[in-house]
Amino acid sequence: MNAILKHITAVPQSVTPDERARAAGHTGAVIWMSGLSGSGKSTLAMALQRELFRRGMSAYVLDGDNIRSRLNADLGFSAEDRTENLRRVAEVARLFADAGTIVISAFISPSEADRSRAREIVGPAFHDVHISAHLATCEARDVKGLYAKARDGIVREFTGISAPWEPPQTPDLVVDTMGHSLDASLSVLLHYVLRAVEPQDVPALKSVGAR
Amino acid sequence: MNAILKHITAVPQSVTPDERARAAGHTGAVIWMSGLSGSGKSTLAMALQRELFRRGMSAYVLDGDNIRSRLNADLGFSAEDRTENLRRVAEVARLFADAGTIVISAFISPSEADRSRAREIVGPAFHDVHISAHLATCEARDVKGLYAKARDGIVREFTGISAPWEPPQTPDLVVDTMGHSLDASLSVLLHYVLRAVEPQDVPALKSVGAR
Repeated sequence: MNAILKHITAVPQSVTPDERARAAGHTGAVIWMSGLSGSGKSTLAMALQRELFRRGMSAYVLDGDNIRSRLNADLGFSAEDRTENLRRVAEVARLFADAGTIVISAFISPSEADRSRAREIVGPAFHDVHISAHLATCEARDVKGLYAKARDGIVREFTGISAPWEPPQTPDLVVDTMGHSLDASLSVLLHYVLRAVEPQDVPALKSVGAR
Repeated sequence: MNAILKHITAVPQSVTPDERARAAGHTGAVIWMSGLSGSGKSTLAMALQRELFRRGMSAYVLDGDNIRSRLNADLGFSAEDRTENLRRVAEVARLFADAGTIVISAFISPSEADRSRAREIVGPAFHDVHISAHLATCEARDVKGLYAKARDGIVREFTGISAPWEPPQTPDLVVDTMGHSLDASLSVLLHYVLRAVEPQDVPALKSVGAR
């Protein structure tokens, strides 16, 4: 370890996660959406963010749009770079959750190893949510035209076509976007998230309510 | 540019910064504290965070403690790695500010080039705040014992001793921690920040007030 790093003295955080949860009425959390391109991750992430905001909750979406072209602009799509991409996303998500925000991350996250590592980084606030649709369905949708390009070899290392996809074996929630409308999928997701971010131990609020 | 990246289709954010500012009563911002080790950055950052939280505002500190050992654990203290460290901090700070949070970053940030780049990354929400104390004062304080180690050559590339320090030429605010107590320094800083995060254009609130 670097000599300076070894000597960094931690100044304790001046606001604890409990205090933040009490003030906001909800805890921080990381809703880690995984799923094939075209499964509906981004659409659901944005809709969920909107619903949480409407309820006065702190929520923020991390996705390819605000991460890939900026913080992780130095990374490509090789297996190694994808792993580093998700490591950094998990670390950033952890900071947001520590700050009391419900982070909604929308990345394909094709490998079990990368998802496990993200869970390790974030800790108990991590929720593995599989946005599920068959490859054939996603390819038929092909919203961004990427599957056609992947089949033609124009886009390389594309998950499901030319790069492996390992479906989550033990997700915390599966949202099936093939058999359900956007509204129905959102409803399942919202129900799960609202329960997940309920503060477990909020004495200050309880005592106010008891008066 | 990578073929996949080129084809990423941006799904518009479902909550705008204006909506967030209206709901929170303040805008997001990046309070970028620069200054020598021992100038008081971390102490002031934590005290400022506490004061903003007490006022019901969303605030979060980024510092060596939560960044260097995690997101940027792969980086050392060479000039190149310090630049990359601050680039990533600026990108993360930008995300937090976009989410409506007042980010307080506390890194030495020794070079004018790195600070300029951070301002470019963040945009108008960036505030260059110089936490100012003479090298002799910081060295006399030597809270972490790092100056002694730097003089002995145990800690290398230490800003002010064995690595260059370029004081900000055009900071938005200078907080002189030599001539003032912590309370007085905090008061100057808080006054500045509260003004900086006032929403400039909040029609919804204005029309409510006018009724």
